[in-house]
Amino acid sequence: MSGESAFIDSLRALAHHPAARGLADDAAVLEVGGETIILTHDMLVENVHFLPSADWADVAWKLVATNLSDLAAKGAEPLGVLLGFMLGNGQERFAEGLAEVLEHYGVPLLGGDTVHGGAPRSFGLTAIGRAAGRPVPARSGAQPGDTLWLTGEVGAAMLGFEALRDATGADSTAYRRPMARLAEGQALAPLVTAMMDVSDGLLIDAWRLAEASRVSITIDSGAVPIAAPETRRLDALRWGDDYELLFTLPAGRCPPVSATRIGAVEARGFVPLFLDGEPLANREGLGWEH
Amino acid sequence: MSGESAFIDSLRALAHHPAARGLADDAAVLEVGGETIILTHDMLVENVHFLPSADWADVAWKLVATNLSDLAAKGAEPLGVLLGFMLGNGQERFAEGLAEVLEHYGVPLLGGDTVHGGAPRSFGLTAIGRAAGRPVPARSGAQPGDTLWLTGEVGAAMLGFEALRDATGADSTAYRRPMARLAEGQALAPLVTAMMDVSDGLLIDAWRLAEASRVSITIDSGAVPIAAPETRRLDALRWGDDYELLFTLPAGRCPPVSATRIGAVEARGFVPLFLDGEPLANREGLGWEH
Repeated sequence: MSGESAFIDSLRALAHHPAARGLADDAAVLEVGGETIILTHDMLVENVHFLPSADWADVAWKLVATNLSDLAAKGAEPLGVLLGFMLGNGQERFAEGLAEVLEHYGVPLLGGDTVHGGAPRSFGLTAIGRAAGRPVPARSGAQPGDTLWLTGEVGAAMLGFEALRDATGADSTAYRRPMARLAEGQALAPLVTAMMDVSDGLLIDAWRLAEASRVSITIDSGAVPIAAPETRRLDALRWGDDYELLFTLPAGRCPPVSATRIGAVEARGFVPLFLDGEPLANREGLGWEH
Repeated sequence: MSGESAFIDSLRALAHHPAARGLADDAAVLEVGGETIILTHDMLVENVHFLPSADWADVAWKLVATNLSDLAAKGAEPLGVLLGFMLGNGQERFAEGLAEVLEHYGVPLLGGDTVHGGAPRSFGLTAIGRAAGRPVPARSGAQPGDTLWLTGEVGAAMLGFEALRDATGADSTAYRRPMARLAEGQALAPLVTAMMDVSDGLLIDAWRLAEASRVSITIDSGAVPIAAPETRRLDALRWGDDYELLFTLPAGRCPPVSATRIGAVEARGFVPLFLDGEPLANREGLGWEH
């Protein structure tokens, strides 16, 4: 919708501060004294970001984990979170899930706000972290000649979502309780030329990395580890919610964490993304656009 | 509602980190390296926190100014804000108001999130600041023998709200565009024993300060500067949205900024708050509870 994109452009124009990569690049980077602070804020909206039947404990988990994943992509160590919570049903389970995810990551709840409202309820989370190394990785640093890597697999969240949607009883943990790759992000940060988390789908996120870096990326679809049956390979490449790290390394460098080489970075061609040598003409159908 | 207060208590129980004063005390205080970072997050909800007919530019102003006021109460210098925005109508005016308030305070937009949703729309803002001095003022430091002070006047926002509600054409700026007392907060922070901003009403906020400090506070209602006719004095003391600073000083100390002495701190009596010598039996009717 053009009104919306004009609005987002006007926000980006306001965000002219050097630290203000947040609107384009998931997390803001702020120098304070001798420290580099990373800040990220995400909202979850009922009926938009989670199923109405969702367990509220899973909603709390996802709200925290997705923000921590943004910190992971910056190689940051989380220092705490602030919660914006619209009061309503499910509060007890939400508090339980919040306690679980904060304990899992060893991250304190620092504060926030509770408000009255109504359906659709919305929730905000701000995460603050400290960059473990400098420079802080961004999407924009990939260079022609670099190799392209992915931690873990994609497609597990897709299967989890489908299990829930179709009530098959199959394991849905990967969708309900995504994991932020914090340790991997911290180990990778000093070595990568570019890094981001795969929140919206491998193909759309690789497209964004290529655009931000003004390069072209080629992905070998067969090399991508998938958690789904082979017949679902292309779906797995388009589905989001896996929160793995996508990163580029200078040629010849090996990552210090478990990861798979899935492609390469080239000088900018006529499109940002090639899949098995075929140019992808536009972003449509590559993943979750929002 | 008991379910809500149980939920908020469970959040407070989670917030056991030393930095986690945020849920009880408006802003979180975090030591990072040699710096003291202040973090605050507030939400505004359509139909709850602003009139449906509001100018979206004023909504943006208020969202930013109220969070900066929380920083002011900590004597902090703002470093930036992150915005959580639910897309919908009024975006152009919102962006204009956001530009105005950020320019007014010289604060950068660092990042945030835009989401789709539906009415009632909600908006979140996180502000980050750096404490100008240590210790960082809290609500909990007032001591028996201290004097109680207020910057500016109360009641202006009440008159502004009524002017808008009744479409009288009278000036409504104080309600629509509250001012955060940042310079005053920074000047006061090294000297006060306790400080907070008056967001919900002078009486209810003084009650909270007394509770947090485990003291009793006496207010001389006639000494409180009000921006309203004398017949509205008690209403002005109960109305919020003025965002003045309420603070305590050791006896004999004078504030370095324009402020009025409105009362005193005593050892804890049988209620936290006395108005003109009369005990206020409970919080009911003292201001905006949320």
